[in-house]
Amino acid sequence: MHAVVIRDGELHWEERADPVPGDTELLVAVQAAGVNGADMIQRLGLYPAPPGSPADIPGLELAGPVVAVGSQVTRFAPGDRVMAVVGGGAQATMSVVDETHALAVPASLPWPEAGGFPEGYSTAFDALFTQGELRLGERVLVTGAAGGVGTAGVQLAAAAGAVVVATVRDQGRRHEVAALGASVVIDPEDVAREGPYDVVLELIGAASLPGVLPHLATGARVVVIGIGSGAKIELNLAHLMGTRARIGASTLRSRSRREKANVAAAVAAHALPLLATGRITVPICATFPLAEAGAAYERFSGGAKLGKVVLVA
Amino acid sequence: MHAVVIRDGELHWEERADPVPGDTELLVAVQAAGVNGADMIQRLGLYPAPPGSPADIPGLELAGPVVAVGSQVTRFAPGDRVMAVVGGGAQATMSVVDETHALAVPASLPWPEAGGFPEGYSTAFDALFTQGELRLGERVLVTGAAGGVGTAGVQLAAAAGAVVVATVRDQGRRHEVAALGASVVIDPEDVAREGPYDVVLELIGAASLPGVLPHLATGARVVVIGIGSGAKIELNLAHLMGTRARIGASTLRSRSRREKANVAAAVAAHALPLLATGRITVPICATFPLAEAGAAYERFSGGAKLGKVVLVA
Repeated sequence: MHAVVIRDGELHWEERADPVPGDTELLVAVQAAGVNGADMIQRLGLYPAPPGSPADIPGLELAGPVVAVGSQVTRFAPGDRVMAVVGGGAQATMSVVDETHALAVPASLPWPEAGGFPEGYSTAFDALFTQGELRLGERVLVTGAAGGVGTAGVQLAAAAGAVVVATVRDQGRRHEVAALGASVVIDPEDVAREGPYDVVLELIGAASLPGVLPHLATGARVVVIGIGSGAKIELNLAHLMGTRARIGASTLRSRSRREKANVAAAVAAHALPLLATGRITVPICATFPLAEAGAAYERFSGGAKLGKVVLVA
Repeated sequence: MHAVVIRDGELHWEERADPVPGDTELLVAVQAAGVNGADMIQRLGLYPAPPGSPADIPGLELAGPVVAVGSQVTRFAPGDRVMAVVGGGAQATMSVVDETHALAVPASLPWPEAGGFPEGYSTAFDALFTQGELRLGERVLVTGAAGGVGTAGVQLAAAAGAVVVATVRDQGRRHEVAALGASVVIDPEDVAREGPYDVVLELIGAASLPGVLPHLATGARVVVIGIGSGAKIELNLAHLMGTRARIGASTLRSRSRREKANVAAAVAAHALPLLATGRITVPICATFPLAEAGAAYERFSGGAKLGKVVLVA
């Protein structure tokens, strides 16, 4: 196979031996693989792949047909169209996926959308519903709503009957985020005006969260998923006591195989039906050939985008 | 009646008109009223009583016989022994309590224990179980375990089958906290040694919490109840993401009448049976006559104590 390889902070396109699926794994011929913020950090050497994933091949999500299966696989067979979050190694022409982490791709969904679905939607679903316990009619703030997790979070929260307030820095992207289901799309400076918030999906980090914390509703749940602008904030415990709010934070990548299987099962039960019927979508900002990952990463980091940058075979 | 009155930061013992119970309230002849950290802050003018409570009479908990009831009261009658958390006004010879906030005092329980039960146990129960979702077999850290909330928290967590680690500054009090059910009683400097913790009941605040946060288990729940040592901490969101921990904080006093009724109902269902059978106790550090509240507050602030300081009629 060929793979995107990180060496000394640079991306290369190199030939590698095909991966061999383990007993519970699927071998997938990757047709599309989304680009994520974690890839940028991994390229800098700051976010090593977890044990069991290729150390130098980036990529946290993929889609493609199954081409071989391990001896204990029961749920999928060669030819099935699958997509999945993986610990790494997605940005290659072949990759392996534990069958409990794989999702069936809806029949009508093109490969780029399938390759850009798993990471953003799994992260947003887990943050909003499992961690944040979002309920019908609650008011949700999604900070940095134009990216992959943000566009997924806006759509999932709106589909679940929440009132969605979204912050988007780039004015040119606001009408598109509104079209995804956000009731109000605002500049990050204006979060005070639209609060108080029951649930906050924080995708920006230290540059955003301190401005949000004074505007929480009683019993609010904050879930921090993105810290691209920094990780350290000052927290005033007295304010938190007054609102009985709680602040949580989460990543998918460090979780155990069992925990990732639980996330995939929840996404299959609650998000896939919406994807299959078109109630939620995967906005694609741009696609690039796998062999041109450098250009794709540049586009990803460039800002002023809506939705996913996806590498395609 | 006579009441403890705060004026210009000083405590006075003064005659006041008897309170009149509203339709849903009980008039109680106070036999015992616990002293709490909130009283110290209220005396300094920094923690005003909520609307509906006397502005200048402190006291968040009381016990005594019902002497009169409002027209809509159905659960209690004159002569019943009750105890309750109130928004203020407990440190007086007479006080009113909404009947939904009142708890029946177990037959064998002396008045000082009853007067020192409601605030600490309601706070600890709500923090550990409702906010912290403590489960059988989990590892709990109680920081500042020798006080009223701490001794309640240690006993409740131990009774629920958790493994309790308690920090106590005063070495002379450690064997007593161990006797309440703590598996390990340590100096606050040693929290690293006994982690990781599934649930943290933080009763100290800024001087304690930053030392605890690096020692959380995956999925840990921190509940901040006390901030006597300060309220502002630096929070590293990246660390929180790695453990999927969450930090919450809570007070009882600012809650609505309905919410306080829910806390009382939970305490009645889950803690009162243990109190009635002696599985949990209310350690009394000292009692003082209501008229000598100043001396009681001095003892409260003096440290080196175990359990409650209680004013008695």
